[in-house]
Amino acid sequence: MVRLDLAYDGTGFRGWAAQRNERTIEGELRTALEKVLGAAPRLSVAGRTDAGVHARGQVASFELEGTTDLARLQRAVNSMLGPEIVVTAAGIASEGFDARFSASAREYRYRIDVGPWPDPFEARYVWHRQGELSLAAMRTAARELLGEHDFASFCRRPPDDRSTVRRLERLAVARQGSRLEISTRANAFLHQMVRSLVGTLVAVGEGSRRSDEMSQILAARDRAAAGPVAPALGLTLERVVYGRRDPRA
Amino acid sequence: MVRLDLAYDGTGFRGWAAQRNERTIEGELRTALEKVLGAAPRLSVAGRTDAGVHARGQVASFELEGTTDLARLQRAVNSMLGPEIVVTAAGIASEGFDARFSASAREYRYRIDVGPWPDPFEARYVWHRQGELSLAAMRTAARELLGEHDFASFCRRPPDDRSTVRRLERLAVARQGSRLEISTRANAFLHQMVRSLVGTLVAVGEGSRRSDEMSQILAARDRAAAGPVAPALGLTLERVVYGRRDPRA
Repeated sequence: MVRLDLAYDGTGFRGWAAQRNERTIEGELRTALEKVLGAAPRLSVAGRTDAGVHARGQVASFELEGTTDLARLQRAVNSMLGPEIVVTAAGIASEGFDARFSASAREYRYRIDVGPWPDPFEARYVWHRQGELSLAAMRTAARELLGEHDFASFCRRPPDDRSTVRRLERLAVARQGSRLEISTRANAFLHQMVRSLVGTLVAVGEGSRRSDEMSQILAARDRAAAGPVAPALGLTLERVVYGRRDPRA
Repeated sequence: MVRLDLAYDGTGFRGWAAQRNERTIEGELRTALEKVLGAAPRLSVAGRTDAGVHARGQVASFELEGTTDLARLQRAVNSMLGPEIVVTAAGIASEGFDARFSASAREYRYRIDVGPWPDPFEARYVWHRQGELSLAAMRTAARELLGEHDFASFCRRPPDDRSTVRRLERLAVARQGSRLEISTRANAFLHQMVRSLVGTLVAVGEGSRRSDEMSQILAARDRAAAGPVAPALGLTLERVVYGRRDPRA
């Protein structure tokens, strides 16, 4: 298996997953790999990021028939994709490694600016919203959400009847000046889960929701019970964690 | 006089100066001010940045008939221009203040990345070029350029026979990891002067020019004598310095 580590500015893309007639990260990467390898590989990915979501530490993997010079592959792919998408590392992973199924946790970061004006140099990566946010209330709410829960209220309903139980290991709110950072980690995230958690914490921070409502929202198992979904542009997949099964951990 | 402090991401603009049918910083700002004030003011500016050049600390000024609520003006203009252009401060300057003619110095910063791949999140603001650069050689060359000189070799020839003598007060090269920063300060800069200085220092750093050639290049008073012009995207106007004539200094 080949493991690719990726960073991308998701602004100009319709998310990770390839779609006909849409510019996507997977689509661009697959086209570039096809040119180098002669055939488009089937990619597995740790985090299927939505349209406009960024990544610093995305991981993808694919099976490779025969051998290839991975340093050359990385150079070739980067010269085709850069600077919006960059392969930051390319290496051979052990037999059985799969970027999605071998991952033991994902870490995301969401950035908010509550200052009077946006910073023009970070506007693509930070949700600028006016109005003060109570850090204390947001932290109280965040603590209630930690642990293993059914997060059906904090995601788009998955197809079929797949489980919406996840283990939320971190949901921390930090502040420096007018900038808030929400960093979160879970074994896996559901569709739009980070943005739903952030939107709900912001609702608590601005006082439109109470910080002690989180258990009720979880129990409702209904998306309408949670706060709004925060915009995509503030979200970055920072890191994917591989446990014992990761040959490089 | 009204003084406006401005920050902008210059990527999508044809530079500061208004031009018919082109998206420029001055053009956008003037249109926004016209909507608020009822008439488009004549703007004076400290640094007429070129297409693709950014600013964190640009200063513009204009004469105001009567009085206006500047906090309201700032909010209104920012809601029309943001997030690419932001008025970071708006205030009344003393009689006779002129953003261009009152300035005693300008400070620019140029960023270069010599790593193997660009950083997708900084690609709009950093010149990514491969190949090592000798910091020691660049610093030796930079020292030779300091002081008052005729910089005709380092600029586009000005119209008429205007003086090309400037006082270069700082030209410093710093490095952290794969990132180089060239910070420079002069009483005033000529057209494309910073980018010509940077391009020449890079030529010295890569070894295609010698670090002891600078006096000869200056003496030539011929643009062809200097190195190439570095790309616009790496350049940011960081700060404008006002001496005693600046009411806010």
